[in-house]
Order: sequence, then C-alpha cells, then structure tokens
Amino acid sequence: MSSNTSPLAPKSFPDLPPIAGIRLSTAAVGIRYRGRTDVMLAAFDAGTSVAGVFTRSKCPSAPVEWCRARIKGGSARVLVVNSGNANAFTGNSGRAACAFTAKLAAKAAGCKSDEVFLASTGVIGEPLEAGLFAGAMDKLVVAAAPDAYRAAAQAIMTTDTFPKLATARARLAGTTVTINGFAKGAGMIAPDMATMLAFLFTDAPIAAPALQGLLRAGVVDTFNAVTVDGDTSTSDTVLAFATGAARAAGAARISRAGDPRLDGFRRAFNLVLADLAEQVVRDGEGARKLVEVVVEGAVSRLSARRVALSIANSPLVKTAIGGEDANWGRVVMAVGKAGEPADRDRLSIWFNGIRVAHRGARDPAYDEAAVAAAMKKPEITLKVALGLGKGRDRVLTCDLTKEYVAINADYRS
Amino acid sequence: MSSNTSPLAPKSFPDLPPIAGIRLSTAAVGIRYRGRTDVMLAAFDAGTSVAGVFTRSKCPSAPVEWCRARIKGGSARVLVVNSGNANAFTGNSGRAACAFTAKLAAKAAGCKSDEVFLASTGVIGEPLEAGLFAGAMDKLVVAAAPDAYRAAAQAIMTTDTFPKLATARARLAGTTVTINGFAKGAGMIAPDMATMLAFLFTDAPIAAPALQGLLRAGVVDTFNAVTVDGDTSTSDTVLAFATGAARAAGAARISRAGDPRLDGFRRAFNLVLADLAEQVVRDGEGARKLVEVVVEGAVSRLSARRVALSIANSPLVKTAIGGEDANWGRVVMAVGKAGEPADRDRLSIWFNGIRVAHRGARDPAYDEAAVAAAMKKPEITLKVALGLGKGRDRVLTCDLTKEYVAINADYRS
Repeated sequence: MSSNTSPLAPKSFPDLPPIAGIRLSTAAVGIRYRGRTDVMLAAFDAGTSVAGVFTRSKCPSAPVEWCRARIKGGSARVLVVNSGNANAFTGNSGRAACAFTAKLAAKAAGCKSDEVFLASTGVIGEPLEAGLFAGAMDKLVVAAAPDAYRAAAQAIMTTDTFPKLATARARLAGTTVTINGFAKGAGMIAPDMATMLAFLFTDAPIAAPALQGLLRAGVVDTFNAVTVDGDTSTSDTVLAFATGAARAAGAARISRAGDPRLDGFRRAFNLVLADLAEQVVRDGEGARKLVEVVVEGAVSRLSARRVALSIANSPLVKTAIGGEDANWGRVVMAVGKAGEPADRDRLSIWFNGIRVAHRGARDPAYDEAAVAAAMKKPEITLKVALGLGKGRDRVLTCDLTKEYVAINADYRS
Repeated sequence: MSSNTSPLAPKSFPDLPPIAGIRLSTAAVGIRYRGRTDVMLAAFDAGTSVAGVFTRSKCPSAPVEWCRARIKGGSARVLVVNSGNANAFTGNSGRAACAFTAKLAAKAAGCKSDEVFLASTGVIGEPLEAGLFAGAMDKLVVAAAPDAYRAAAQAIMTTDTFPKLATARARLAGTTVTINGFAKGAGMIAPDMATMLAFLFTDAPIAAPALQGLLRAGVVDTFNAVTVDGDTSTSDTVLAFATGAARAAGAARISRAGDPRLDGFRRAFNLVLADLAEQVVRDGEGARKLVEVVVEGAVSRLSARRVALSIANSPLVKTAIGGEDANWGRVVMAVGKAGEPADRDRLSIWFNGIRVAHRGARDPAYDEAAVAAAMKKPEITLKVALGLGKGRDRVLTCDLTKEYVAINADYRS
C-alpha cells in the first residue's frame, strides 16, 4: 500500500448502502503485512446466485481453479479474499490451502465447501499458510455486518493507492434494486501483486445462468477494455453475487440474461463494472494520465478493439503521453503493427479533439501550442479514424512513467 | 546520437575489408542534424543481385514501399540511406521524394531508377526535402571508396550509441568470399527514429532469388528474434547485395537457395545477421542487461517462439531484470498470458543456469544469494522448460529501465 495516492484518484468515495442478504467483515491475520487487515469475508443468505469470469492465463492461481470448478453450481454462501499471498504457482499445497480455507468457512457459516468462493492476491510462488485463517474464520462470520464495504475493499488492497468502490440503483420489474461493487487494481510491488479482483453484489433476484450472461457480456467493454501494461495476471477474477432479497419487495425472479425486464438493471450493472474498471486504470502503477483510446472507421468492431489495444499497449505511445507529447508518429507505428486492415493514406489522428494528422500526413492546420496545452491535462482522449468501415471501439489505459519502472524494478525481498 | 555509449557495446569494432564491386561514401547535407554526416551511398558494379525483407507494418514508410516494388527486379546499382527524416507518413510528397532521390542517384551512377534502393530513418510525418541530395549525389558517387564501411554505418545512426558492424568469410565452391554488414538500431528520441536498418554486402555470385531465399530464412532467428519494446517500426528494412565479383576468382554462380554448395556461405551469412541483430539489442534504449530468453519443451518451435516473445515483451519481466530481481513469478505470468499450451505444474525456470522454479512451484533447493549474484551480470539467460514437447526457441531482448522512459518521454521539439 502506497502512502502517495494516485493523482488520478476519484475526489471522493461513494457510500455503499447495505444490501439485504449480504454481510461483510475483515481481519488482520498476518499473512504478509503488519498493522493492517488482510482478509475479508462476505456472507450471503441462502439462495444467493453467483457468476464469475476469470483470467485467461494458462497458469492460473489455485483460487481461480477452485472458483472455476464451482461456478457452474451457481450457488454461493461465502466469499473469502486475502491479500499478501496470491496462492499462485504453489502446486499441491495451493490446492490444499483452498480446500482447507473453504472447509473452515463452510463450517463457520453452516454451508457446503462448494458454496465458498475464494480469491487471493499478493506474492506468487510462496505457499499460502491457510492455517492463519483457522482462528479468525468464526469471528469473521459472527462479526459480518451489512455496511462494511469500504473496510472490505481496503483489506484486499496490495499496492493500490486507494480503495475502489462503486454503487448504482436500478428498477427491476417494479422494484428498486441495488448493485454494489469493489475492486483492487494491478498494483504490483514486492513482488507480484499483479491481480485484478472485483466483486459485485446485488439484491436483485437473478438466477445464476442469467447473472453469468450479464457478467460475461458486461466485462467485454469494461474490465476487458482496460490495460495498464498488457500483462495478464494469473489471478484476475470478477465475481457477482445476487441474493434475490428484493423478491420480498415484489421483484420477479429473472432466469434469462436476455429477459427484457433486465434492461435497466443491465445498464446499472455495466456502469458499476465500468466505474470499477476505470478506477483500476486510474490507480495503474505510476500513472499520471488517464488515456482513452478511441478507434473508429475500422473494418469491424473487433478490428477496432485490436488496433486500440495495440496503441494502448505500445510503450512508445505510453511514454510519449507521459512526456505530454502528442506524438502521432508513434500512433501510426502502433496502428501499423496491429496486423489489422489499415491504409496509411486514410489515417487521421486527434489528441483531445485536436486533429494532428489527416489522411496520411501531418495536418497542416494544427496548432502545436494548442496541442501542447491539451496534452498537459490529466485525461487524454486519443482518437484514430482508419477510414475503412464502421467498426468502432474504445479502451482505457494510462501513461508509462519512470515511477512504473521504479515500482517494478524494486527487489522482492 | 548519444554521447554515452551503451554499457553493452562490443569492446571493439571489426575492420570490414573491401569487397570487389562495392564502394561507399557519406555526406552531410543537413537534413536535421548539424555537424555530422546524414547520408550514405553505396555504388555496386553491374550484375549485383539484391534481396530484401521489410517491416510487416500496415503503415510502411515511402522508402519501404519503393524497395518492395523493386526488389523482384533483383538488380541493384545504388543504395542511398539518410538519417534525420524517416520519410514515413508523408503521403504523396513521400513518394515524390523517393522518385526524385532515385532519379538523382540513377543519373549520377549511370543506371536505371529501378536499380536504386532507398532507406530513411528519423522523424516521422515531416516531408523529406529530397532537394538536399541534389548537390551531393554526383560527389557521393565520385568519392565512393571500397573501405568506407565504418563511416557509412555512422552516417545512418540516429540515437544509436555505437555503429554496428560485422564481417565474415566463407568458402564457396572453392573460393573464399566475404560478407560485410552494418545496421542501425531502435534508438529513438525526438521524435520517432524507430527504425531498424541493416545492409549486407558480399562478392559471392548468388542470383537474386537465391539471395532472397537466404535472407528470408536468415532473418527468422536473427532480426525477427530480437525485441527491444515490441514496437515495430514503419521503416524496418534489411537489404542484401551480392556483386558476384568472386566469379573472377572461380566461384560458381549459385541460382538456388537450396544449393548444397551454399552451406558454408549460409552459416557465415547467418552469423553476420545474428551479430548485427545482437548489436541492435545491445544498443536498445536504456538497456543495461542483454537478455536471452530460451524456451524449451513447447509443443512446437512456433509455440516456443511465441512464449519466448511473451516473456521478452513483458514490461514486468523486463523491469524485474533491470532491478536485478530473478522474479520468476512474472515469468509464470508471461508464460500464462502467451495463449500457448502450458501446464503450470510442469513449468521450470532458470536464471543464468540456476533453477529457481521446478514443476510448478518454487525450487526448494535454490540459493537466493547465488541467484542475486547471477542477476548482477550484464548478460542474463532466462530459460523456461514447459515440459510438454520438443519445441525449442530463443529470442534476445534487453531490460526496461527508467532511461528507456526518459529517452522516449522527451518532447519532440
């Protein structure tokens, strides 16, 4: 945890209201850090649906494998998340640590192990001492309270400089429902806390397959459309929990993600996902600029996404933006290397609305002083028009600074 | 051009011997730099074969398009290369500048424009004032001399900290032939000199299609197996010229790349390519460590290459190596994100011969002090065994340092 809050941090944190059927608590069990909480537990009433999406890494962490094997069960009673140790690349001991932790939580909460979901973030490759949870689990369940979201978000931080919280309300079949969420970002230091974790909670009565459909679609333009350094963690996890408590207020149970009654909920749910994903980028390591990369005129939306990611992951583009340089030559390079259809002589580029390149050459009309002023802003929109078709997409990233290198070159020990 | 030579620079530069049929010269025409040469010309005797490989960028520079359109002609009389302006993203004026330069060179050398090959490196997006060559071209042809390789290599440097030269001899059908080469690297500053250029020269009598076959195969494990930052230039160009002058000493003309008489030549040719490619990495921006990434046990060689590139392009792996940290957790991450077949529980990792992770977990026997000492060396070999098959490959890269960010965050003007 850094003492220097990111300059891109939100000016204030939202208050997350209680959601019926969800209680949270935190504890300090001393996994790695001293003087701070490092485990959080969320307890759910019976009947809570769960959905999840996970890292595409071929070397996933033990908790990712644990959750992936149980997500199809669709039912959750407990979520346990620790910071300080990622339980990744830990072999058999990692699997055993998951099973042991889930057993403790199931006993404390009076449920089955398969209804316990787990996530871990922190050091890779060191065995997770799950025994540390033994003395704390009962107390975590007993102490769980409906208003502890901020404390929960703080307990899972690693090198994050601020807790990431979001909330929204939606109308669902005549009732108002709430969606809360929190996340931790790709803050990494000593050594490898390269884990994006996000958890969403709602009282909406949505069956697990429908929730899974919402989540899978929702991450496409939110968590899957952000990049800090193009490095995918072994542990990335987004879980959504729906208690269904709003049924008591008359909300109908929704069983299909395509149900038209979900439209308002879907919008609110996606806003929470987008809000949290943006906060992750705002807390990207060493970030000083939030960069929205918009690509339009591509042959398809997928092609636009790939070109946008090529730009957003280019070290040369990112260092230029860090240097407040509207270096469109490097944008041309990144478009060219994406491997997607592009025609140099149709390409136009804008920084914060100022066109600097037009149809394959420098825009003769552009005012260098105006661009230089625009580049000093903390938020930069980099737009590229390919001029080939109607495909459009956007991704969010941050600049690449010396602080990123300093943070990540620090020795582990 | 930086005054601080890379700490990874070779201790000495080879003397390149003259090659019959090739003369070189340089001039200072003031394209961008002051007080240094910025254009080089190589003149070839009639009958010289040419082969080339170029950037895969979809937004290539005008000289790349010029050369690509003429490489199939197979015949070269002149090569003109300038530094200071890349003639990239310059639209019609870029095409006109190429045609004008080639016409000047053809007139001075008494050949056809289509026998003139061009390369440019420097600023992207600014029109190249080809008129600057008008007064110099005749003098360049007249002054060309057979021993001017080092001066030629220096004239095409941008932010390179040392000229990159290599030479080798080979036996070819009873005669000794010579291969000379020079290159410039991915040195970039104010703003975009992101161009890798390399030129090879030989007196071997090799027909253009055979030379093309040699070159295309030769770059696979040399120039296509190095990466500094994963950013592909608009201008990358490797050209090979074969005068055939060794025929006078009795060498037979070779018309097929598969001719068994080429075996010795191929080895020497590939050594020159590999030597120059390694020098490009040794002069990578801000580089303090030369890193060889070896992947074995992959399902195929292509799969091994992709995993190696995922590791070599990972900012987290590169910053860790810069910090002298044998951070194998990040290597696991980079293997996992490559998208290639991998099994966490079979994965083993070595740094400079010391095994730090074995079959999916930290190697319990490894000595942290020995690894820490090994990581202080300027050359690091990072080996990954996937344990799946027999696919093996290697790539070269360098570390990612604050100096890389500083160099690339400098404002253009």
